[in-house]
Amino acid sequence: MVKTPLGFSFAVADASFRGHKVQRTDLALTLCDVPATSAAVFTTNLFKAAPVLCAQENLKNSDGIRAVLINSGQANACTGDKGMSACLESQRLIEELFSLPKDAILPASTGVIGAHMDMQKWKDSASALKNSLGNASLEDFARAIMTTDAFPKFVGESIEIEGKEVRFAAVAKGAGMICPNMATMLSMVITDAKVSKEEWQEAFHYAVDKSFNRISVDGDTSTNDSLFGLASGKSNVTVPMDMLKKTLLKVLTDLSYLLVKDGEGATKVMHIDVSGAKSDADADAIARTIGHSQLVKTAMFGKDPNWGRIVAAAGRAHVDFDPNKMQVILCGIEIFANGEPRDMDIDAVFLEPFKETDIPIQIILQEGTGKAHLKASDLSHAYVSCNADYRS
Amino acid sequence: MVKTPLGFSFAVADASFRGHKVQRTDLALTLCDVPATSAAVFTTNLFKAAPVLCAQENLKNSDGIRAVLINSGQANACTGDKGMSACLESQRLIEELFSLPKDAILPASTGVIGAHMDMQKWKDSASALKNSLGNASLEDFARAIMTTDAFPKFVGESIEIEGKEVRFAAVAKGAGMICPNMATMLSMVITDAKVSKEEWQEAFHYAVDKSFNRISVDGDTSTNDSLFGLASGKSNVTVPMDMLKKTLLKVLTDLSYLLVKDGEGATKVMHIDVSGAKSDADADAIARTIGHSQLVKTAMFGKDPNWGRIVAAAGRAHVDFDPNKMQVILCGIEIFANGEPRDMDIDAVFLEPFKETDIPIQIILQEGTGKAHLKASDLSHAYVSCNADYRS
Repeated sequence: MVKTPLGFSFAVADASFRGHKVQRTDLALTLCDVPATSAAVFTTNLFKAAPVLCAQENLKNSDGIRAVLINSGQANACTGDKGMSACLESQRLIEELFSLPKDAILPASTGVIGAHMDMQKWKDSASALKNSLGNASLEDFARAIMTTDAFPKFVGESIEIEGKEVRFAAVAKGAGMICPNMATMLSMVITDAKVSKEEWQEAFHYAVDKSFNRISVDGDTSTNDSLFGLASGKSNVTVPMDMLKKTLLKVLTDLSYLLVKDGEGATKVMHIDVSGAKSDADADAIARTIGHSQLVKTAMFGKDPNWGRIVAAAGRAHVDFDPNKMQVILCGIEIFANGEPRDMDIDAVFLEPFKETDIPIQIILQEGTGKAHLKASDLSHAYVSCNADYRS
Repeated sequence: MVKTPLGFSFAVADASFRGHKVQRTDLALTLCDVPATSAAVFTTNLFKAAPVLCAQENLKNSDGIRAVLINSGQANACTGDKGMSACLESQRLIEELFSLPKDAILPASTGVIGAHMDMQKWKDSASALKNSLGNASLEDFARAIMTTDAFPKFVGESIEIEGKEVRFAAVAKGAGMICPNMATMLSMVITDAKVSKEEWQEAFHYAVDKSFNRISVDGDTSTNDSLFGLASGKSNVTVPMDMLKKTLLKVLTDLSYLLVKDGEGATKVMHIDVSGAKSDADADAIARTIGHSQLVKTAMFGKDPNWGRIVAAAGRAHVDFDPNKMQVILCGIEIFANGEPRDMDIDAVFLEPFKETDIPIQIILQEGTGKAHLKASDLSHAYVSCNADYRS
């Protein structure tokens, strides 16, 4: 059970964004009793969806963020001026419904790129959303924002400061541009810690960089990615910075692991660690080339300890290093060093380790102190089906 | 029928590199009667296979290249000093067998990375290879170097200069690091044109850059990629430079198209054209991001005109452009411009065009004169099977 941080409540409704034949919640609201201390990161894609642009504006202009509003089933991306108007109209509707000041909402959407919002569905579901407030849980929120996620993703963590409890909770859907047109990773972390805006943003960006920015499902960055952080201060406890960072990082690391594990069709999570590079950037480039390699990903799906593909991926990462000094440790076992394979029956040695979901891959370069970590999913038949078959 | 350029002959043999249960040719030789004018390009992967390193040395040291020697079934990559010794030993064996001078062979290998060569198999098959000389065709050569290629890939072109015929022929296997551990794109182009080394190399690099460097199956660059160009001069015809470039480009474009079409599990060939970028490099980055996108590739396999994924891929290519000026033309039909979709029933409009193998994708940026072209295959269930299932 994840404890809800003080000051937050949830509401969900079925707005039928996927059509009236699909009965499920697809509209979700998190409300904060007070103006929250806020932070956010958004997609780096040049094509930013209307809700991303609106959320960025509201973070600048608002007197205090009071709510996160997410719909699934319609992405409102690549929809031009008409899409912006629709996003603003839905904001005004929800502001009025919950008596919120102007620009106090952070909106996010996930669904088919290029399709226009059906505003009537927003209007028709407004009263149901209002009635749900306080009766919905964080898990209900997590379910309403799902697209093809196999399970709702939410985590929590409580810490004690001088005998007083401070709660953190976080929720997410999708990983990368994981789903058929259902572009998006959307996530939110909330806490009742008392924290200044500067401290909250510092801790937030620190934790995001080491968690969400270190995962990949398919390498495709969506038009709608948004990660919101809201602190209500309602615990009345000020958390020391190092503990705030540590706790946020734990919550977001747990959550981002779930995103990779529930990557489209994923059966494996590669934990890729590159060290000894000339720079962190070099290490990152190698980790991402391995994690994005179709051949490495399909080998993982096939439970195949095909280290040659890992070595070949490292070698094409446009990073300068001495190939004869590189060491590869797979599932804790050194398999390649000094330019040649270690002598072993790899099928026998890796039979048991490759039955696990989690596959550690260590690359050591002996060139410097640069390092990087990446969690990446495999590439399976289910991924292809999910992304090729949905229109048929 | 491809006419063999004068001065060249072929030999093939079954060396059982895949084990004695598999009956097929897997050792192939092209012999030139005279020292050939030579050119070559190799993988950019830091981990270069032993035959790549040997071929690079021989191009520097040889008094004239006389042969191309390719085996399939064993890649001799990531095999260290032992692999280099094995490669040299096989060279010496073939040099002696065909009475060639030292270092006159360009070797290439394709097969499992990290496995050591079985030299006994070379020795056992030597006499069969010798007996085959002159009895084998270019098609036989193309078949012997296949791994999981669905069909042998070879093309030819003859031109007339002042009433005299000049022949070009080319052969290839695999595309990208297309196959289960069968790392490699290997290719050879031969001609009887009379040409200086400088002219041949200029034309060769010109044509390679516009053909082989413009294709992708899975974005994985192998440890063994090699493309050799040999000119015998036996037609006694000097081909003007512009015609040499044009003909070589046609031959290598035809051949590289076949590589994409026969990409692992491929059902589609995307012809991606990006224009109006600030630079050719920008256009290239966008073309490659689209061509390598798992989501675009799976949409193509699903016959889904999912233009939102193309737009999203362009937007994450780390290229600076105004998203509101970008235009997307799919199968000749403008589908996205001015930041919004064109109003149409896309399923109906694209039903027939998406039944074709070839899918033209045009991206126009209106930022400058930079342009790039890329041919890329789709991502299918057969790709996953081929690369995940081979050890089971």
